[in-house]
Formats: sequence, structure tokens, C-alpha cells
Amino acid sequence: VLVLLPSAAPQELPAPWGWACDEGLCVKGVTSDTTTSLNQCKLTCGPESAVWPRPASIEHSSEVAFFLPTNVTRRVSCQDAVCPLLDQAIDLFLDNLQKYHPDYAGGSAPWEGPWDASIVSHTLDLDVTIWNADDRLSLETDESYQLFVTTIADKTNAQVVAATYFGARHALETLSQLVDYEEGVDALMVVSAATVVDVPAFPYRGILLDTSRNFFSVQSIERTLDAMAANKLNTFHWHITDSHSFPMQLETLPNMAYYGTYSSRKIYTTTEIRNLVEYGRIRGIRVLPEFDAPAHVGNGWQWGEEQGLGKLAVCVNREPWQSYCVEPPCGQLNLANPKMYDVLGQIYNEMVELFSPIDLFHYGGDEVNLNCWNTTDEITSWMDENNFGRDADAYYNQWSVFQEKSRQLLTSANADREVPGILWTSHLTEEGRADQYLDPTKYIIQIWTTGTDYLIGELLEKNFRVIFSNYDRWYLDCGFGAWVGEGNNWCSPYKGWQAVYDNSPLDIATDLTGSAHEELILGGEAALWSEQADEMVLDARLWPRGAALAERLWTNPSHNWEPAETRLIRQRQRMVARGIMADRIQPQWCHQNEGLCYL
Amino acid sequence: VLVLLPSAAPQELPAPWGWACDEGLCVKGVTSDTTTSLNQCKLTCGPESAVWPRPASIEHSSEVAFFLPTNVTRRVSCQDAVCPLLDQAIDLFLDNLQKYHPDYAGGSAPWEGPWDASIVSHTLDLDVTIWNADDRLSLETDESYQLFVTTIADKTNAQVVAATYFGARHALETLSQLVDYEEGVDALMVVSAATVVDVPAFPYRGILLDTSRNFFSVQSIERTLDAMAANKLNTFHWHITDSHSFPMQLETLPNMAYYGTYSSRKIYTTTEIRNLVEYGRIRGIRVLPEFDAPAHVGNGWQWGEEQGLGKLAVCVNREPWQSYCVEPPCGQLNLANPKMYDVLGQIYNEMVELFSPIDLFHYGGDEVNLNCWNTTDEITSWMDENNFGRDADAYYNQWSVFQEKSRQLLTSANADREVPGILWTSHLTEEGRADQYLDPTKYIIQIWTTGTDYLIGELLEKNFRVIFSNYDRWYLDCGFGAWVGEGNNWCSPYKGWQAVYDNSPLDIATDLTGSAHEELILGGEAALWSEQADEMVLDARLWPRGAALAERLWTNPSHNWEPAETRLIRQRQRMVARGIMADRIQPQWCHQNEGLCYL
Repeated sequence: VLVLLPSAAPQELPAPWGWACDEGLCVKGVTSDTTTSLNQCKLTCGPESAVWPRPASIEHSSEVAFFLPTNVTRRVSCQDAVCPLLDQAIDLFLDNLQKYHPDYAGGSAPWEGPWDASIVSHTLDLDVTIWNADDRLSLETDESYQLFVTTIADKTNAQVVAATYFGARHALETLSQLVDYEEGVDALMVVSAATVVDVPAFPYRGILLDTSRNFFSVQSIERTLDAMAANKLNTFHWHITDSHSFPMQLETLPNMAYYGTYSSRKIYTTTEIRNLVEYGRIRGIRVLPEFDAPAHVGNGWQWGEEQGLGKLAVCVNREPWQSYCVEPPCGQLNLANPKMYDVLGQIYNEMVELFSPIDLFHYGGDEVNLNCWNTTDEITSWMDENNFGRDADAYYNQWSVFQEKSRQLLTSANADREVPGILWTSHLTEEGRADQYLDPTKYIIQIWTTGTDYLIGELLEKNFRVIFSNYDRWYLDCGFGAWVGEGNNWCSPYKGWQAVYDNSPLDIATDLTGSAHEELILGGEAALWSEQADEMVLDARLWPRGAALAERLWTNPSHNWEPAETRLIRQRQRMVARGIMADRIQPQWCHQNEGLCYL
Repeated sequence: VLVLLPSAAPQELPAPWGWACDEGLCVKGVTSDTTTSLNQCKLTCGPESAVWPRPASIEHSSEVAFFLPTNVTRRVSCQDAVCPLLDQAIDLFLDNLQKYHPDYAGGSAPWEGPWDASIVSHTLDLDVTIWNADDRLSLETDESYQLFVTTIADKTNAQVVAATYFGARHALETLSQLVDYEEGVDALMVVSAATVVDVPAFPYRGILLDTSRNFFSVQSIERTLDAMAANKLNTFHWHITDSHSFPMQLETLPNMAYYGTYSSRKIYTTTEIRNLVEYGRIRGIRVLPEFDAPAHVGNGWQWGEEQGLGKLAVCVNREPWQSYCVEPPCGQLNLANPKMYDVLGQIYNEMVELFSPIDLFHYGGDEVNLNCWNTTDEITSWMDENNFGRDADAYYNQWSVFQEKSRQLLTSANADREVPGILWTSHLTEEGRADQYLDPTKYIIQIWTTGTDYLIGELLEKNFRVIFSNYDRWYLDCGFGAWVGEGNNWCSPYKGWQAVYDNSPLDIATDLTGSAHEELILGGEAALWSEQADEMVLDARLWPRGAALAERLWTNPSHNWEPAETRLIRQRQRMVARGIMADRIQPQWCHQNEGLCYL
């Protein structure tokens, strides 16, 4: 019979383990005078502390100062509209500090102590200076910042200097990542000294969300913007409509949503859209609208005939779908109906206002199916009557005419202020075509073919600015079961975070053209097409893989994923603490035993 | 300029669509006198109504009766301990009705009406008869039931007749699936008449959860049990410990969790374990404990030497891990230390009590690494001293001796009542070995090799009872990024629901042996190994694929996944309404346009 062992009851956990920093890794061992908590070790060990994405330059001490989140002071120097923005950014910073507490719930955490006098008296003093009055993000915005943390006696000073609001909010995000919770004292700790000089490698760092194949609640989109802010991503590309549904309320065109939503509960009201644009701006994020056309339309457009406008779209829900589009349901705009342009212009009018002020606009422009148009009497008659011809080139010509008209309508809607348009790679951008149909001073091309497609080189050599979303690395919907037929979906396998991290636009450009073309590569974007995702799984599809993307685009590291692994897991845990249901990529044992989950 | 269109404001959604039943499919079209809501169509159209898994036999009317969830009466006929169980099952049934309301939140829903008098006066009268006093699940339990729904005037009678509590609760689950919410009248509707005669195809229908690689909160396990109940799955196989962590509190061996948990917050207390066993029982689910040994141990076992018991486990966290185990971290029990058996026996004592009464016990028994033992001096000396030899067979012999001792310790812990033991396929079950080391009257073998492994046939021909978990179809952790190294994880690709559905144990047995061996095939189980999952993604990993498994094991359909597709999506939506964050497998358009997302 085994004698009962005199030992600690589980209530006395955690023990008996502690961590010590050894050559940049936190090593688990029996607790001693030289060990700390895991949180403290991760904050102080390693060149980047626990900051994600890795700053361009960071130095920090291996000491921490303890403080309570109620003891944070703020002093700001800013101009005009930037000041209220900065106030909100600091509020978000304070919220994020609360969320480090493991018992955070419902907006607050139960700080209970008891605390040493030194903890109670310690203050974290924020001192933020922003030079520039610009409160809108553009491709030219200076997002750089400097952050200096110093501790003297019972004061830790965090000095932020940035040209713009957007740099300053990134600095606050970095500062929040130099802070963590210390369970032993029920307080926060901040790295006692640090110098961060930071600037992003690319000006366009995006996440695409498709809200047409499945609907995502406003709350889940806000959560996505929160997580993007935690990773210094700056563009939420909203693929708001598609053939499947039209969830966008338009005040002047209520029929679009009336006919096009999945249900009355699955609609983005104009107020909600405006609020999301502002929600993003506070977090340093441009909410970029895409209105995909002339394909990828359908449901929502069925009301034209009844209202005397004729058919606005053709092939809507037409069967067998395989003949008329790439996935069910089908639909394309009716090029032969001039009223279609009236409606399109009206949609642009409202969208420009809802997303105001726009600095970019995404026209979509992918996957036009010529057979749809060429088997629709109204269109073929119109082609014949105008002597346009009926071969593929004839249709590409008319498609490019449509695109030019769309650009004019959008510009007109935007009070004649031209903004760069973004288009997906498509038949219009194929070999020898792109500069025939599209003007590189007016269009940016978003690449969704593979990272070895020679067309990427052609686009660069024709001076198109590009955004990378090559599906072999940056499509986050790949690798699940098929949704038509069986087996796995078209772009399988699943793209692991390592593949996402290692996808380097500059390396791709160099491989294809011999030059990195830095001036033309605006950045990149991970896409979540939502045939097989809704808000139940949104967070896990996007994160932490979106964080891997973020370090590629912010830091553009010269090394591969391996040195980033333990820090990425730390960032994943941070996102979970902030309410993001990110996927788990390793056993917790790997988080606690750095560097031992190798192959 | 486009004239503003006189049309419905979005507030007046939903419109203009309705659904009509056409040859078993709900077809979307313009609302008319002959269309209904989508919910009503799905409830009344098609041979199985919206019931998942498909009952052995079901007939139903195409009419519905409207009622309010407050107007449900109950009359029961039962014995002894079954009556309080049944009361709880009916309470859960009523909760599930509330959850159909789209505004359900925090335990209740805002039923607001106004209602017609006919709705207010309508009652749903439950009349449940259970013949048998048995309140514990076993492999012999009769889970069959009969359900008769009839409506006369303002009363819908639902009569349930079942041999056991377990059959009756399945009947209530079926009845809840003959109910749905009708938005137009803010009330529930029930199919006005139905006859269901139902019985499961297999007695063992399981989900495995590994809580050692990552921890899952009690709340998330309860959610899993809820979802299992919604699919009539009856076994929650709890792989509670492994090499990575030991999250199980033991009153008499507190050191196991003290040394073995990831943190003081990541522990299952004895109270929580007992509550989960009861939580499962109410839902018709056996909580089956696995204590995996002699491999897959490690963290938690490090305290032996300090407490004077010697090394209880060897190779714990040993490096390089590739030499001593299949994944980091390593660890195996120390066969040479008799004190190890004292501790193991004590663990069994507590586990038998915590999971009491057990009708099965899972010993694990997979993936022993001979090199670990054969490079450990204490073990090799012991092998030599006892003249056991040192070759592979010598170690297999000692492993089988360990297994027999384990079985005796477990039986002793269980007051000398023998229960069948379950073991994973392993070196001990390889060609020619299984019946040399293991007694088919005492052991059930859980198959995790592929569904084409000839060993399955050998096990059946040697009269072993088996449970299928062939990894090529029923491992739900496959298809994500690698967690050691790069690329995708070992058992990629992802197993889509179609592959899960089509995996037929009887067909596999027939292919391999020419006979279905129905008497030996107890059923099957989908496994979620948790190296790359925690509670953030638990629901999406398990569901709706676990529902596909459930129909295979409950109904064992002769057809493939195709006829089940629209009903599976309906079941997924039902689980979401009940708070399960199930994965999305198709655009909502497919849910609203049945049969059109084909290939």
C-alpha cells in the first residue's frame, strides 16, 4: 500500500517550476533565486522582448518594474483632430493592460493585491508627441515611431515620438507588448528600459474578409480590427458583396439588400459601416471597400425588370453553374443595359460617402466568364448591333470599356478626385494584355496567382504597382474539405504559419525579374474567402497566421520562420488574452519549453 | 441621374423570398401562398424532416403546429433513479427549445408576440414511458426508442416509449429536432404528426479529446458533451494525461498535478471530474477515462526520487527527443521500479472512484519506444539481472507483463469487478502478436491505423472486439501546419466531413475479411489530439464533422454523404443556435438553395 505523500495540495500551484534566460531562450527548471515567472522571462529574454511584429530596431533591459494599471499618467503633444484620436488610442492601450489579467472579464479585472508599497507607488508615465496634424491614412503616411522607456526610482517614463498619429498608435501597441502580468504579485510589469526605433517595410499590410459567401457580424469584424491593430496591420480589405449575397444597406438603393441579404439580420446598416470605418481609423487601419464587378455579382440585382430598368445582371443563379461561373451561384453585370451604369454609379456614390474619405478603391474585376455573356441574347445582340465582334478579345475589350466607365463613375462619385484603383489579376492582366487595357498610373494590381507566376514579373516590368496575395501562401481558406463535391478544397493544402511567414514579395520579384522592385511593391494581404468560414471560425482562420503575415510586411525579416516561433506563440497567447479566438499551433509544453519543439 | 426607387426599406426585410418543397428539396422563389419560411420548409420537406442522425425509421406530416415554449406539459412513467434523470432531460429539452429563438441569450429568449389565440392556447404534451430502471450506460444498454407525435385541435401529443433512460433521452433529442422557430409569428412550430422507430447501429459512438497536449476548460468540455448529445453520440473518451502535462487532480497523489500541470489554472479538480461524469450521464454519455501507459507519460512523474520512491518514469523530457519518443516531450514508465506499480495502482484507485461506476477502461498502450528503455541503465540492468534478454521481443514481453499487472491493479481498484480494457493498436497488436500478448475476452482494440490495414482483418479473425478510429478518416487534428518543422502535419490532409461520413467500419471489415463481423465491431470514434487545438478552436475541429461520424455510427447509411448534405448543414446551424461554434462548410447560399452546390 502506498503511503500518502506529504506534499503540496493543488491549491498551492503553481510550482515547482521557474524559468531562466539562457542564450535568448527561456529554460524551465526547478524554482530558485535565479528563476522568474514564464511571463517575466519572455518579456526580458531575447533581443526582441515579446514584441510582435519585430521592430526595425529594439534594445531593452532585462529588468522589469511593477505597477498597477490605475497608475498610468498621460501627457500629449498633438494638433487638431489628432488629439481626440490619440486620447482614444491611449484608452485602448489602458484596456489592453487590463486584459493581461488572467481573470479579466466583462471589461475589467479583479486587481486584489496585497501589494508592496513600491508597487502601489510606481507610475507609468506616458509622454506622446505627434508632429503632424494628418488624421487619415494613405500610402504615403509616415508610420514610423520612436519609443524610449526609462525607469528612475518609482517612475517609468515611456516617451513616444512620431510624425503621425498612425506611428504613435503603433508605438503604444509596442509599449503594451513590453508589459505583462506577474501572477506572483498580482500586478503588471514593464521592461524597465527600452529603445525602439521602428518603421514598416511596406505601406500596405492587409487582411481581406469576404462577407458575401457568409455573413460576419459587426462585432466579429471589430474583433478582427482589434487583432489587426495588435499586429500593426493597416488595411481591412472588405470584400463586402459577391454573387451570393448583398449585405450592404444603401439608403438610395434599398432593393439591393432587400433582394440580396441572406436575412434581415444579416445586413450592414449605413450607420454600422460608418462606425466600422471610424473603429478602424482609431486603430490605424484603413477600411478599404471592394465592389467586385462585372463578375461576382448576382443576388441583390434581381429587381431591375420589375422597376422598369431592365435586366441589370445576367446569369443570376443560372444553371448548370459550371457553364457560367467558377462557383455557384453565377451572375455578371449586363453590359448591354445603360441603366446598369446608373445603378453602379449610385452604388459608388453611397460607398464613397460611407467609406469617406477614400484613398484607394477596389474594383474587384476577377473571374469574368465570357460564356455567360456570350449565351445571353441581350448581350450577344448588343455586341452584334455595335459590330463589336463576339470573340474573346471582343469581350475583353468591352470588359475594359466597362472598367474605364466604372473608374469615371467612381471618380465622379468622389467629387472628381482620382484615387488609385485596385484590380485583381484576371484575363485583363494576362500576358501582353495588362498595359493594353489598364493604365499603370491609375491601377494597382493585386496578385492572387502563385508566387512563381511569370506574370508577376511582367506586371512589375510594365510599372504596375502591386499587392501580393499569392494564393499558394496567403489564402487562408485553403486546406479544408471541398464544399462542392468531395475531397479537399481547390487551393489545398492548408497554409501553415511558416509558409505565410516565409512568403517574401521582394524575393519573389527578385527571382522573377532580377530586381526587388521595392518602389512598385506596396505590400501584401492575406485573404479569407468565406465559402467555408463565418464568424464562428473567423478568428482561428485569421490568427495567428495573420500575425505571421504582419511580421513579413512590417519587418520583412531576412531569416525564415524559425527564430520567430516562440515569439509568435507568445503573440498568439496575447491575442487570446485580448479576446481573439486564435488557433493553437503547438502544445503549451512548447510555449513553456522554448526551442524544444524542433525537428 | 437615377430616380430613387420606391421600395421596401431594409427594416422590412425579410422578403421577397419564400420556399416550397419540391421532390424533397426546399426551393427558393418569390414569396407566395404556396411558400413557407426556410425553417418550416426544412422541417416538413424531405423524408427525415430535419432530424440528425437519420432515424432507423421516420414518417412525418408536412404540416406544423405553432406553440410557445411555456406551453409544454410533461407526464412521465419511470422507476427509481431514472425519474430524476428524466426530469433533467426534459429540462434540457425545454432549454433547447428556447435556443431556437434567434435572440436567445444568457439562458432565455425574448418571446414578444403578439400571437394569435390559437398559438397561445396550443400545448405540446410530453408523455414519456421508460420500462427499465437502469440508470447506467453499458455496451448492452438498449438505446432504442419510439416517438409518436400527433396533433388534435390545440394539443400536440408527443409520446415517447423506451426501454431505458438512454433511449428516452434520444427520443427527446429527436423531438427537439422536429421543432423549430418561426420568425413570422415569433413562436415555435412542431411537425404536427410523426412516427419515429429508432435504434442505433453501433453501441459505441465516441469522441476522443486529449487534454494533455493542451488544456480545455471544464466549460468547453461541457459544451462538447452538449454537442455530442445533440448527435446521439454516447462516449466521451477522455485522454486526460500524456507526456506533456498531467492536469488531473488526485487527492492521494497531489504531486502528480503539482509537478505536471501547465499552471494552477489548468487542472481538473476531483469535483469537476465527478461533475463532468454526471453531466455526461444526463446527456446519455459515458465519460470513458484513458490512462495512457507505459509510454505517453512524463511530466507529473518527476517527484519519485525526491520522495524516496526512485525513478517512476524514465526519459522524461529527454533529448534529442527523436531518439526516445514520437514527439516532444518523451517519457515512459520505469518497468524496473516496483514502486511505479504502487503509484499506478493508486492512480487507478482514484480514477475508478472518480469515474464510477466504470463499464470500460482505456489503458492507452500505444507508441512504446524501445530505445528509451534500452538506453536507460536502470532498465537494462534489470533486464539483464532477470535474464529477460534485451531484444525487441524481450521488451515486448515485459510490456505485456506490465499490461497484465495494470489490468490486475485496475480490477483490484474496481473491487475485483472485471471490466473490458481498451488498448490502442500498437507493436503488441502487430502481425501474429495480438493473441500472443492479449486475451480477446479481456481487451477491446481501438484501431488507429488506416482503414486498409490488413491487421484489422487479423484482429477480427482472432475474435477481438474493435473500435474504429482509423486516422485516414477519423483523426480530426489532421491537415493543419506542422508543429515541429514546417509543411503540414503528419496525417494531412484535412479530413472533410464527406470522408468522415463515408468511413464505414462494416465495409472495411468486409473488404479485408469477406465478412462484416458485426458482432465484433462495437463502433467508432473520432479523435481530437490536441497538439494543435485548445478550447479556442475545439468546437470547429469537432463539429460538424463529429455529426457526420454520428450518422455513420447511429444510422450506418447505405448511401454516401451526398443525400445527407443539406440536412447536415441544418444540423450545423442547430448546433450554432445551441452555442456550439461549429465550422462552416458551405456558403449560406447553399443552405438556402438546397441541392445547388453540387459538382
